[in-house]
Amino acid sequence: MRPVFEPRCADYAERVRASFARQGVMHTLGAKLTRIEPGAVDIALDWAPGLTQQHGFLHAGVVSTALDSACGYAGFTLMAQDAAVLTIEFKINLLAPARGERFRMEGRVIKPGRTITVCEGQAFALQGDQEHLVATMHCTLMAVVGRDGVQG
Amino acid sequence: MRPVFEPRCADYAERVRASFARQGVMHTLGAKLTRIEPGAVDIALDWAPGLTQQHGFLHAGVVSTALDSACGYAGFTLMAQDAAVLTIEFKINLLAPARGERFRMEGRVIKPGRTITVCEGQAFALQGDQEHLVATMHCTLMAVVGRDGVQG
Amino acid sequence: MRPVFEPRCADYAERVRASFARQGVMHTLGAKLTRIEPGAVDIALDWAPGLTQQHGFLHAGVVSTALDSACGYAGFTLMAQDAAVLTIEFKINLLAPARGERFRMEGRVIKPGRTITVCEGQAFALQGDQEHLVATMHCTLMAVVGRDGVQG
Amino acid sequence: MRPVFEPRCADYAERVRASFARQGVMHTLGAKLTRIEPGAVDIALDWAPGLTQQHGFLHAGVVSTALDSACGYAGFTLMAQDAAVLTIEFKINLLAPARGERFRMEGRVIKPGRTITVCEGQAFALQGDQEHLVATMHCTLMAVVGRDGVQG
Repeated sequence: MRPVFEPRCADYAERVRASFARQGVMHTLGAKLTRIEPGAVDIALDWAPGLTQQHGFLHAGVVSTALDSACGYAGFTLMAQDAAVLTIEFKINLLAPARGERFRMEGRVIKPGRTITVCEGQAFALQGDQEHLVATMHCTLMAVVGRDGVQG
Repeated sequence: MRPVFEPRCADYAERVRASFARQGVMHTLGAKLTRIEPGAVDIALDWAPGLTQQHGFLHAGVVSTALDSACGYAGFTLMAQDAAVLTIEFKINLLAPARGERFRMEGRVIKPGRTITVCEGQAFALQGDQEHLVATMHCTLMAVVGRDGVQG
Repeated sequence: MRPVFEPRCADYAERVRASFARQGVMHTLGAKLTRIEPGAVDIALDWAPGLTQQHGFLHAGVVSTALDSACGYAGFTLMAQDAAVLTIEFKINLLAPARGERFRMEGRVIKPGRTITVCEGQAFALQGDQEHLVATMHCTLMAVVGRDGVQG
Repeated sequence: MRPVFEPRCADYAERVRASFARQGVMHTLGAKLTRIEPGAVDIALDWAPGLTQQHGFLHAGVVSTALDSACGYAGFTLMAQDAAVLTIEFKINLLAPARGERFRMEGRVIKPGRTITVCEGQAFALQGDQEHLVATMHCTLMAVVGRDGVQG
């Protein structure tokens, strides 16, 4: 049972969308925001030949990129108006080859904090109407305030 | 002082190049192999607007993608002829914003093994003639043999 | 919703108990097995002055030790008769100071495999009738077969 | 080549010793500080039956406990007078069974910071005059200021 979180900014969803739109790599991946709730963000993307590793599966780094953004924005939904979000570290376990037509990355806050927020993420591969878990992430975010050129 | 490793295949460099060429995402990142030695692989790429996070730095996931390939291929240089390489897990610490004109990711084997190989990686940002460390990775690879459709 | 796992050995619980009894450090920690099910093992221990860090909380390493055993034995419940279990790696996030009278560490299998098994763990601190999550772990186990002196 | 760090407190070594002496678990492990320099701390301990896993090797959690303290105190040598040190997260790769008569855990700062410090650690097993690397750690520390009951 996931805890219920109270956002500090009423416009948290708009803030996430604005920041996401500035992430050049999300365009490159063809990634889309498919859920924005307090402490929870989902990102979806389709398989494409430009996203693969040598066996034709989604590259672990691409799974990581989308999961990192999902987790980062999940944390960002709970941060203060003047905070930017940076990832300090993450760890990913690749449970199965990322084989699928589409992918959904779920980022969830486990423990929010003024400075440090901890999230977990899950990546699912979808094929027809089947889906299976291909990766799990744990990541640590930092809320950064008052650093030049670092917003959102 | 890094240990000296003996490759099991004389054509290890060619094998790495062939596999790397099949990684669609390396083309997408504009990444190039700049070093292939037993237990050591470097990958370089240039900053580009399609690789960024919201502050214009290289996205942590892009750093991860190139580091993961550098580590994976460092391990692959020491694997047997019939082995494919898969990443089981990795962890990355983002030490500083990945701000630079160019980036160099270094993958190094710490401990090779028949089934499990452990590597570490370092990502450097280059600006003019300056370079600084922006991320460190630890990753665990598995040598996979005899799985259909999984080679290289 | 956690998947249901089928153990390969009918005597999985007995095997876990026998191996646990041989872990000298579990005696040192005063740790006890409080749950053994296919893919799920819990370990409990009481706060003691010999288990603390400098602020009097349970040392992160002690939390790790009990979580690692809980995860390792969760994986072991699903392994074959002749397999021993070794931890390849784990990562732990310390979400809050481990302050409490008693602690419960839960190890759960996420993805079992013939060679590689991935688990996650949660550590809870208990004070009176309150409990809170203080740490999460992700770990990778290897089933080892036919290595001298390595059983259970 | 490791960077040279400048401690903020002249009495950094004394501060480490005083804090270490308050870690109950270090007494339980029979652990000793064998090196304290700016950004670098070593801890040594002997094998003992009360520190083992089921095969008689040092338990991965005991390796983690000593490495975590070595890393934590390496970071603490560079922190301000009023700061306490807490581990946010760590990841450990167990490269080989921790089989030996004695063990040396080395904690080294990679990146110090006002709030966040990143360290890496290496654990060596010693047998006669041989030593070998058995584990590597990456960890993230936080400097905590002004929290009641949290000092050193």
